[in-house]
Amino acid sequence: MRIYDIIDKKRQGKELSHEEIEFVISGYMNSEIQDYQVSALLMAICINSMTKEETYHLTKAMLHSGEVLSLSTLGDKTVDKHSTGGIGDKTTLIVAPIVASLGAKVAKMSGRGLGFTGGTIDKLESISGFKTELSANEFISQVEKIGLAVIQQSENLVPADKRLYALRDVTATIESIPLIASSIMSKKLASGSKSIVLDVKVGSGAFMKTIENARALANAMIDIGKSFGRNVTCIISNMDVPLGLCVGNKTELWEAIEVLSGRGEKNLKGLCFTVSASMISSAFNVDYNQARKMVEDAVFSGSALARFYEWIEAQGGDVSEIKDSSLLLNAKYKRELYSKESGYISRLDAQKIGTASMSLGAGRIKKGDKIDYSAGVVLSKSYGDRVECGELVATFYSSSEELVNSDEACAMFFEALSVSNEKPKEQTLIYEILK
Amino acid sequence: MRIYDIIDKKRQGKELSHEEIEFVISGYMNSEIQDYQVSALLMAICINSMTKEETYHLTKAMLHSGEVLSLSTLGDKTVDKHSTGGIGDKTTLIVAPIVASLGAKVAKMSGRGLGFTGGTIDKLESISGFKTELSANEFISQVEKIGLAVIQQSENLVPADKRLYALRDVTATIESIPLIASSIMSKKLASGSKSIVLDVKVGSGAFMKTIENARALANAMIDIGKSFGRNVTCIISNMDVPLGLCVGNKTELWEAIEVLSGRGEKNLKGLCFTVSASMISSAFNVDYNQARKMVEDAVFSGSALARFYEWIEAQGGDVSEIKDSSLLLNAKYKRELYSKESGYISRLDAQKIGTASMSLGAGRIKKGDKIDYSAGVVLSKSYGDRVECGELVATFYSSSEELVNSDEACAMFFEALSVSNEKPKEQTLIYEILK
Repeated sequence: MRIYDIIDKKRQGKELSHEEIEFVISGYMNSEIQDYQVSALLMAICINSMTKEETYHLTKAMLHSGEVLSLSTLGDKTVDKHSTGGIGDKTTLIVAPIVASLGAKVAKMSGRGLGFTGGTIDKLESISGFKTELSANEFISQVEKIGLAVIQQSENLVPADKRLYALRDVTATIESIPLIASSIMSKKLASGSKSIVLDVKVGSGAFMKTIENARALANAMIDIGKSFGRNVTCIISNMDVPLGLCVGNKTELWEAIEVLSGRGEKNLKGLCFTVSASMISSAFNVDYNQARKMVEDAVFSGSALARFYEWIEAQGGDVSEIKDSSLLLNAKYKRELYSKESGYISRLDAQKIGTASMSLGAGRIKKGDKIDYSAGVVLSKSYGDRVECGELVATFYSSSEELVNSDEACAMFFEALSVSNEKPKEQTLIYEILK
Repeated sequence: MRIYDIIDKKRQGKELSHEEIEFVISGYMNSEIQDYQVSALLMAICINSMTKEETYHLTKAMLHSGEVLSLSTLGDKTVDKHSTGGIGDKTTLIVAPIVASLGAKVAKMSGRGLGFTGGTIDKLESISGFKTELSANEFISQVEKIGLAVIQQSENLVPADKRLYALRDVTATIESIPLIASSIMSKKLASGSKSIVLDVKVGSGAFMKTIENARALANAMIDIGKSFGRNVTCIISNMDVPLGLCVGNKTELWEAIEVLSGRGEKNLKGLCFTVSASMISSAFNVDYNQARKMVEDAVFSGSALARFYEWIEAQGGDVSEIKDSSLLLNAKYKRELYSKESGYISRLDAQKIGTASMSLGAGRIKKGDKIDYSAGVVLSKSYGDRVECGELVATFYSSSEELVNSDEACAMFFEALSVSNEKPKEQTLIYEILK
């Protein structure tokens, strides 16, 4: 078998065999196949696509490039979730304790953030003492005991995806449904949960620009899941509307606690309840509406919030820092921003708000950069809200006086905002739930 | 400008601007753009193609990546030729002295061979003393004096093509009309001749498998030539039929002298006369039929052969070795091969005969390998000829007793040959001449 012939075959739009796909992944991992050959193949895949069978074989080859977790000792109610990404996405912090409090098992690995905002791991590390590295035994036994644990993704998990993704990222070969599907699913499969709920974002700020594409990605991932005997549910949700009011690390923790306390912005709450209900429905094999009722009970009874504190404590986090959640908004410097006009909020560009938050110190420009956990943006108004000229629209938080007062962050924020005379039409939050 | 955006644009099948194409070539040449990015772009070009304008700009950017020769002191009758490649292609050795004897100026740079057979440079170096490296002054002044010189292609000529071709060769991105056209034309333009005749081969053994593709390539090259003010003529010729009877280095020199003496195999002679007539027609702006008559006169009067000897002498070659051309077939070892059946030669697989010749020592497996100049294959029969069982069909030549007697070479030769009861139908040699 020669890599040249395999690239040539895909260039001509032909279907690659199981053996050919394995040859590519193993040859790439042991450096017999070069970056420039793989990038040419990836481009051919981007343009000529892959069949369902090819996507399955690619996922399998990537999955077996590293460690595969077994959660068998945790029973069959293990459930994982993943989001295709968004600014200010703190859903994991909210849904994991909700479903754990209902008896599902969440053994989750998560990543650090790069760019606009920290990742789940960064948000958790903003609590003093919180450990995001546990041994396999500690990890499993914590899930057995309290139903959840969230740790840093192991370096040994799907190393092929790491190398391929880094290459795709510099060769404009990201946008391919089979490549995205196999990348996400290989990691979810390696993490071992029986049920998987995927939040596929669609809209101007998301990867998938149209519902058709989002649906195609969802179906590709559901197909892969079926081939591996997993229950996959995909929620197609709107990313034109920003999710929640907070961007940052401690600011997002604060907002997570708001939702777990039964308060919080309605879109964020709506999505978290939908994701949680889908996870419960899948893990317990119950009807979605019944699961939704269970989720609401868990939140409004306070048991989800109680489980959240238990979780933070179990991983060594100092709960005193978050029990009074207003402490999470105690950055050294604050700056209030006031509306320059009256009307309705008709646009809130999540990407630009993310950029403003990053310029306050909340994100990383490059891997390894230090994050200012207290930095971030908290909106006072949501999409569709009425605002008067001179009324507070947002607050900047930072531990740097210079950054909090920078003209750049302020200009970026006002670029993200549009105010109109007419109330904008309500936006759909959840388009479809597929399984 | 970012390479990522340029790759992404071509992935989506959009047209690249002049500036974007220059950015890619200059960035690649100064190592700011990586192999894996260029190979992804090349694959996108292979699949999504390029417009006429993009192809022009790519050619221009490659052309200006290195030295560009000026032949202005040689007047406007400078003429170059190129063939898209074939086994046993010795046309340069024949057409260059023909057209030079008629007053055209051939200042030609040529390459070494890799694989099946030596290149023109290797064939010339098989003559003792022949110098294939001349200074620019020596080169031009020889062409002024005797109308022709053939030297090794300068390392500084279109270095971008060298790097791109090496990358295409390992990433299955060879098959693209705009890439092939710009690669060939950038070198021909850099070599400076006013008229250019291109022999585009079509058939199972050639790069272009169909006449439609060959015609598309021809038209792309003619378009590029026009944009740069050159006269380009393309001859679309058949490569299902092997060209001539000899493969090797000295064996091919012998065959060149046969044709220059008015003898030789009819297809080889036919193609050489057509290429020469096209060169004369273009250089002197005369009608093709008139040019063809001039070419035949040059050969049958002996003036082309005389110019051939003058040329070899001018570049330091020992003419005594070739004046009696039978000396060129004086390899230390010979082996005669006899037909195993009676009938008509219905197939002669040029590629396999090339491989047999290589296994006798006539070619290079890797760059820098030494060539056995005396090694090669000489056929006694052409496609369509009658052969009787036990009759001589070919002779192997080699300076190695072991190689000449190897079972491998013999088996390969008989694999290349088919004999049928019926006389096979005559094949077209020249499909079209475009300009």
